[in-house]
Amino acid sequence: MTNIAIIGLGLMGASFAKKLTRLNYNVYGIDVSQQTIGKAKELKIIVDGSTNPLDVISKCDTFIFCLYPTKILPWIEVYQNDIPKHSLLMDISGVKTNIVKPIQDVLREDLELLSIHPMCGRESRGIEFSDETIFKGSNFILVPTQKNKNETVEAVKELANKMEFGRICTLSIEEHDKMIGFLSQLTHVIAVSLMNTHDNAHLVEYTGDSFRDLTRIAKINEDLWTELFIMNKDILLDEINQFIDSISHFRDSLEQEDTQEMKRLFIQSTKRRDKFNKTDAKKR
Amino acid sequence: MTNIAIIGLGLMGASFAKKLTRLNYNVYGIDVSQQTIGKAKELKIIVDGSTNPLDVISKCDTFIFCLYPTKILPWIEVYQNDIPKHSLLMDISGVKTNIVKPIQDVLREDLELLSIHPMCGRESRGIEFSDETIFKGSNFILVPTQKNKNETVEAVKELANKMEFGRICTLSIEEHDKMIGFLSQLTHVIAVSLMNTHDNAHLVEYTGDSFRDLTRIAKINEDLWTELFIMNKDILLDEINQFIDSISHFRDSLEQEDTQEMKRLFIQSTKRRDKFNKTDAKKR
Repeated sequence: MTNIAIIGLGLMGASFAKKLTRLNYNVYGIDVSQQTIGKAKELKIIVDGSTNPLDVISKCDTFIFCLYPTKILPWIEVYQNDIPKHSLLMDISGVKTNIVKPIQDVLREDLELLSIHPMCGRESRGIEFSDETIFKGSNFILVPTQKNKNETVEAVKELANKMEFGRICTLSIEEHDKMIGFLSQLTHVIAVSLMNTHDNAHLVEYTGDSFRDLTRIAKINEDLWTELFIMNKDILLDEINQFIDSISHFRDSLEQEDTQEMKRLFIQSTKRRDKFNKTDAKKR
Repeated sequence: MTNIAIIGLGLMGASFAKKLTRLNYNVYGIDVSQQTIGKAKELKIIVDGSTNPLDVISKCDTFIFCLYPTKILPWIEVYQNDIPKHSLLMDISGVKTNIVKPIQDVLREDLELLSIHPMCGRESRGIEFSDETIFKGSNFILVPTQKNKNETVEAVKELANKMEFGRICTLSIEEHDKMIGFLSQLTHVIAVSLMNTHDNAHLVEYTGDSFRDLTRIAKINEDLWTELFIMNKDILLDEINQFIDSISHFRDSLEQEDTQEMKRLFIQSTKRRDKFNKTDAKKR
């Protein structure tokens, strides 16, 4: 990894470009917007860039895809013949099942795809909001398959270390998508559904921290998240249904004034949440 | 208001005692625990206190009830005959419908109950966690009825000002309980139900900020919140049902891959959440 192409200079792609440039890699940028390429050059976070991938591809040995999930496979199908031999490809998508296998199925034999998930998104979008500090201390998940070489996995772990990620770990595709389905996607569905429960603008003035904390992620990039949810549909539907069962059970306990069961549920949630707290403490 | 009795020196009561002592009021403490009275004296946040209300009542003109909601009415029924004439009583309960009217129905004619809700709880309980800074910048809601004198309402607003509360406002009992049902109680039901969806301890290491923010309030005092929920049962059940409708609709849209509707829901939640953000900014 010396000459790294970033495909898609949105919030994440441009943040990668900033950080990797700071780490003295030669970073090249590819984006559909000429304005974004101009901005990236102005910010000096790429050595060169173009809206035409063919201007850049041949100079690079590593390709990081920071595109919308559905755009990655078509891009690879069109341009992979121009990618230098034995290059490394990485995608940063939030779901993996419907990304990794379809790409590996069509990928040129000498190219290697190692899927990664840097867990450090932001609510905003676009190069203007890029920020090289978002990686620091965040989780970095590698999602290798049998097609990946050990030395590649080790090299990418080293890169993540240099980028100052916090916990760096490895998950299978299935483990990754189940984890994301619960911890990230279900929580977003909940926040969005809470804001959509009814019009609540008249309550703004009375809002305390708990409601704000719970709904912060209801501000969402509708195009990206619709893609991510549909790509992880079966797992996410299962998680939503389990959650609806859980809250329906609470509702029934309240309806029947079953105070003993309500207390049991409170105690269980408190106990479970406590475990997550230790990590809170460690992180701070 | 010169000599103020705090009934119940838990987290909230003891925080009141600290702050009011700091503001040079004479604060008296009443608590069922002799140890708590001792601790309050040691902290010098009361001039005197006792486990026997009769030792203290006659010295006071203002009574702030920081008891569990179901304990207030029985306390008043037993001790109100010993309360000095024309005293002011305040309760700080998180719900009002089933607190205010039952008390006013039995209250001695010359006594006045003005119900208040200082919106600044904490997850912990007990005098050891009391903290006089919790009031600063928080919302303070007065819930007066026709039985309250204007001058009393004004005097209590002035007190809230001195205590450095942020927004000080007035709501009817019904408005208050609907607002609390949605903003506070429903959010707690959601956080608790999310933690209870399934065992999730193995996911601790992958947890990001969004899940932590959403579940922080799943750590809950089971005795207090069971009382509060049951006292506001009808309103809360209605809110839970509306939320279940909202998330079920989202689930159905995902199941049918109705991307147009999913995007509409994301855009609506983003727009609604934006309004809450302005207050974020103001507060910080």
